[in-house]
Amino acid sequence: MPKQDYLIAPSILAANFARLGEECDNVLAAGADVIHFDVMDNHYVPNLTIGPMVCKALRDHGITAPIDVHLMVSPVDDLIGMFAEAGASYITFHPEASQHVDRSLQLIKSHGCKAGLVLNPATRPDCLEYVMDKLDMILLMSVNPGFGGQKFIPSTLDKTRAVRQMIDASGYDIRLEVDGGVSEKNIREVAAAGADTFVAGSAIFGKDDYASVIQQMREELAQA
Amino acid sequence: MPKQDYLIAPSILAANFARLGEECDNVLAAGADVIHFDVMDNHYVPNLTIGPMVCKALRDHGITAPIDVHLMVSPVDDLIGMFAEAGASYITFHPEASQHVDRSLQLIKSHGCKAGLVLNPATRPDCLEYVMDKLDMILLMSVNPGFGGQKFIPSTLDKTRAVRQMIDASGYDIRLEVDGGVSEKNIREVAAAGADTFVAGSAIFGKDDYASVIQQMREELAQA
Amino acid sequence: MPKQDYLIAPSILAANFARLGEECDNVLAAGADVIHFDVMDNHYVPNLTIGPMVCKALRDHGITAPIDVHLMVSPVDDLIGMFAEAGASYITFHPEASQHVDRSLQLIKSHGCKAGLVLNPATRPDCLEYVMDKLDMILLMSVNPGFGGQKFIPSTLDKTRAVRQMIDASGYDIRLEVDGGVSEKNIREVAAAGADTFVAGSAIFGKDDYASVIQQMREELAQA
Amino acid sequence: MPKQDYLIAPSILAANFARLGEECDNVLAAGADVIHFDVMDNHYVPNLTIGPMVCKALRDHGITAPIDVHLMVSPVDDLIGMFAEAGASYITFHPEASQHVDRSLQLIKSHGCKAGLVLNPATRPDCLEYVMDKLDMILLMSVNPGFGGQKFIPSTLDKTRAVRQMIDASGYDIRLEVDGGVSEKNIREVAAAGADTFVAGSAIFGKDDYASVIQQMREELAQA
Amino acid sequence: MPKQDYLIAPSILAANFARLGEECDNVLAAGADVIHFDVMDNHYVPNLTIGPMVCKALRDHGITAPIDVHLMVSPVDDLIGMFAEAGASYITFHPEASQHVDRSLQLIKSHGCKAGLVLNPATRPDCLEYVMDKLDMILLMSVNPGFGGQKFIPSTLDKTRAVRQMIDASGYDIRLEVDGGVSEKNIREVAAAGADTFVAGSAIFGKDDYASVIQQMREELAQA
Amino acid sequence: MPKQDYLIAPSILAANFARLGEECDNVLAAGADVIHFDVMDNHYVPNLTIGPMVCKALRDHGITAPIDVHLMVSPVDDLIGMFAEAGASYITFHPEASQHVDRSLQLIKSHGCKAGLVLNPATRPDCLEYVMDKLDMILLMSVNPGFGGQKFIPSTLDKTRAVRQMIDASGYDIRLEVDGGVSEKNIREVAAAGADTFVAGSAIFGKDDYASVIQQMREELAQA
Repeated sequence: MPKQDYLIAPSILAANFARLGEECDNVLAAGADVIHFDVMDNHYVPNLTIGPMVCKALRDHGITAPIDVHLMVSPVDDLIGMFAEAGASYITFHPEASQHVDRSLQLIKSHGCKAGLVLNPATRPDCLEYVMDKLDMILLMSVNPGFGGQKFIPSTLDKTRAVRQMIDASGYDIRLEVDGGVSEKNIREVAAAGADTFVAGSAIFGKDDYASVIQQMREELAQA
Repeated sequence: MPKQDYLIAPSILAANFARLGEECDNVLAAGADVIHFDVMDNHYVPNLTIGPMVCKALRDHGITAPIDVHLMVSPVDDLIGMFAEAGASYITFHPEASQHVDRSLQLIKSHGCKAGLVLNPATRPDCLEYVMDKLDMILLMSVNPGFGGQKFIPSTLDKTRAVRQMIDASGYDIRLEVDGGVSEKNIREVAAAGADTFVAGSAIFGKDDYASVIQQMREELAQA
Repeated sequence: MPKQDYLIAPSILAANFARLGEECDNVLAAGADVIHFDVMDNHYVPNLTIGPMVCKALRDHGITAPIDVHLMVSPVDDLIGMFAEAGASYITFHPEASQHVDRSLQLIKSHGCKAGLVLNPATRPDCLEYVMDKLDMILLMSVNPGFGGQKFIPSTLDKTRAVRQMIDASGYDIRLEVDGGVSEKNIREVAAAGADTFVAGSAIFGKDDYASVIQQMREELAQA
Repeated sequence: MPKQDYLIAPSILAANFARLGEECDNVLAAGADVIHFDVMDNHYVPNLTIGPMVCKALRDHGITAPIDVHLMVSPVDDLIGMFAEAGASYITFHPEASQHVDRSLQLIKSHGCKAGLVLNPATRPDCLEYVMDKLDMILLMSVNPGFGGQKFIPSTLDKTRAVRQMIDASGYDIRLEVDGGVSEKNIREVAAAGADTFVAGSAIFGKDDYASVIQQMREELAQA
Repeated sequence: MPKQDYLIAPSILAANFARLGEECDNVLAAGADVIHFDVMDNHYVPNLTIGPMVCKALRDHGITAPIDVHLMVSPVDDLIGMFAEAGASYITFHPEASQHVDRSLQLIKSHGCKAGLVLNPATRPDCLEYVMDKLDMILLMSVNPGFGGQKFIPSTLDKTRAVRQMIDASGYDIRLEVDGGVSEKNIREVAAAGADTFVAGSAIFGKDDYASVIQQMREELAQA
Repeated sequence: MPKQDYLIAPSILAANFARLGEECDNVLAAGADVIHFDVMDNHYVPNLTIGPMVCKALRDHGITAPIDVHLMVSPVDDLIGMFAEAGASYITFHPEASQHVDRSLQLIKSHGCKAGLVLNPATRPDCLEYVMDKLDMILLMSVNPGFGGQKFIPSTLDKTRAVRQMIDASGYDIRLEVDGGVSEKNIREVAAAGADTFVAGSAIFGKDDYASVIQQMREELAQA
């Protein structure tokens, strides 16, 4: 995989929700590749964020970049359909949140979206074994989703290396994304462990100059 | 109650989520009194909309008008706390969605917010009897919350009259709000039945000129 | 309402499930008017019985009589759609089992079926007030649904009288059905209280001669 | 294991529910070994099929062949008791559907039934490791249970081989069953991978001549 | 009803759990009539207290006074059986916590225990109408169960009067109990409203001299 | 690990709940090291035992020995906070009972308690892999929690050996506890498999002389 294939995916959870269209325009203009869209339902995680209507509004606003919808919800199937209609590009969910993981992945793909699974910090990657052929994305959480004020969990690096091996061994074209506490300070290390897609929230939206921090991230990645 | 006390509460569910701050600014400048904020969790109703972070963003954006948060969620207590911190003025919930209705009302008030209950189309008002002293708002749904494409349910007018009588008999200062299919075409009739607060979604945000439709509503109300 | 409008609705829960088509043929030939179809999901009640595929099989078998589907399930909306497609005529459910009773009734009618609500022994009829215009059937349980070995609960007669008054006062055309412990021995009394539709399980299917017991019931009803 | 030990288990989900006794008689006369009985509760899977009363009716009808009850339900313990009393021979359930897998297996065996676990397409077989001594059957789903219109999932063959190795290494006498999209066209391949018990629904009941298709299956199996 | 029929029921939730037998001995010796036993399951209310084994231990310890078990749990049926076997005299539950209220009441009585329903502060008494014939006790909560630090809710007095009328009109022998913030200071007022059984927790166990406070309560009651 | 580090942890589930403080005093005086505190909520397991108030009462009574709280509850996070405040030393839970295992472990440690996970008889130890750095205790159930009348499940010995290897390989200081059917008769074998902490209920509290049986256990352990 060539290094230019790294994708930077700012999480709009850290953006200004009062002017979300403009925030997305700006961060894409500043060099971001993907809009990461965090959906919480106050059941799978203890918070409630944004749903399909917000996703559709971004498409109607003119966002054409990929929108990467991370479902921190349970159950998942009905929201898969709603987000597919709302313009999602990727839809990922937690295997613990669906009673029929293979079926939910098939459902995402039947809508023409790319499908993925998300692993919580304590979740082992072997749950991916029998669905590798249906995955376009594997997202590793390096913090516990839905809870604030957490630091990057170091054992994520080992897991990233393990999943990178699984992907390479499988021969499938699957992106390996890491989310939680990623910034210009550690992105190189995360990439070195095998990740190719990087979610960053306040590390980007918390800065005044989005382009500058994304540029820093690219420079770090170039050395990974 | 003097007629000038009518409140018009546009539901931001019909606004453009890509520029929500500007939408709220505009609708308030056009004469709206209250921002109505519809929260769905994909459990109490089959959709997921917007949560506390969006409410806080509106406050940070500079909205000072009352924000009237309608929780279509179950359970309710944790989100009550989150919305109180996010700047909610009113917090209303469905009695069927809380196992301890009196306690949830007390919780809202302990945060310094105004508290209310919401009645679904099939729900009788007598469930209000033992908590009238803790209510600042009663919201009557004239459509089923969380489902699209519905018309104003006519029996809501009878229920509005019944609840108006309960409020007047109680002597408490409680607003009576109606939500669902309200527009300039029927607002006079709804007011005549006893409502004093009117939620309107696409009837306002679906128009090019918010001020004009709000002005029409005010003229209708003046004749109620 | 003329007395000839009484309907006898044998519950196939008491029929022989190994030859259900033949059982329905026989009981209809013996004079029954309606097939009563009891659906339990082991969540709303502690048993699991039969679902939409069995209903469809009866239609494919050639049953053209009304099929009266009593949903002892929670939630109800998905099964409403499945039973409508499977050929149900009436679909009734318990108000406690749906978070959006008005909506579920509308859903049944949107499929072209007749809609009804079922009241448990402890449930008061006033929950019907705001949906009387959407009801084609009110079913009063005279035993607790889903539990075996119960006797007719006497307070059902008072409730039957109360609901008969509500129906007559409403002016709507709504059938009033009673289910649980009804037999040729008490059907006259139940009819006298105001019921017009009678579910009977083992009282009919437990006999060798279905026609004879149905005839006895008709004779009792003629004297109600 | 000698080849004559292959068992063919027609799923009555594809039979005519209006004359289930006769269907079972016919398919057994046509050479089937076992009646496969699919139980869905509209909670673990999105459909509701048939429960213990139907199982008992088949026994009362005179079916003496093994009845292999596949519980696609959650929770499982109460239905285990009901199906044991209704005459089940095998009772299998999904490990994700019971909070106490070892206990539920013990419960099945305490009723004198044979016990098994069912693996969804995405479920890894290593969850079997600590209960191998309590298993009489392992059922591998080659489609997602409860959803229609699916094709045999190819990775099931790898999983079949893996589980066959686990069984042989354990020394226990455990049947290995495959369910979903199995027909005379692929049964030989499934057997070659290590299965010895084959569920087939429409592949058998969808044909006019049950004996002919079962005979074809036997011929294929003879070459496995 | 003669005044000497007042019952004082100390809640062991306020007793010393390290020596519960002795606490019960002492409070009964000090003049209490009934041991009130509060069961919370961390689902119906946000706390978990004590279960059937503790009840049985009190019986084994030699307590022969009535034990009045208040189930703040959902679901209720399995615990009803366990508490009946553990020696409960009364078993009461919240109607919102059982899907089949009439059946749960019958279940309690089938075990030879006395049965009751508990009304939360916001719950109207009309839910009692169709089960008055199965009630031995009606418990009115004057605080929200399971939450700490609450004061007596004044509208309970109105509700007590309303329920007293219902009981007297019914002709049934039903005790009327009030729980929450009851002490020697307000017990006379609560009795005057129609209650005859009084739960008190810290008002008794929080004192050094149980006999003295119970005596004070009796004196207040004598003047009610 | 030196042999003197073996800990004996009597489960107060088998103690006399009418005089729990005295029971704990006695068993500690008899040589026990730790009080094992079994919490059941009638949801994760089919019984309800004792909650935080009982734990606090033991601390108030003067117990200073470690209290080892085993949560057989779901969800776990709220009770973690309550037990930490009530004086728990260890808090352990089942990974299946928390949607966010890493987060719940962090929550326990943030309260200054020692954290652990409990494995049911059918649960594989590999679920521990990514949280080994957050564990102070691993508890292996050798019976199914919450069900009575069970015998020690022999495959626990293999699992004990496997987990002992994981702990030793990790380099972390983690206790390995076994619970269920442990007595003086098999404690040596369990220790030989790698356990260092032993829960015993009726094996200790069922005897007249606690010191004698604890002494026997120590002698057995000395030979392990």
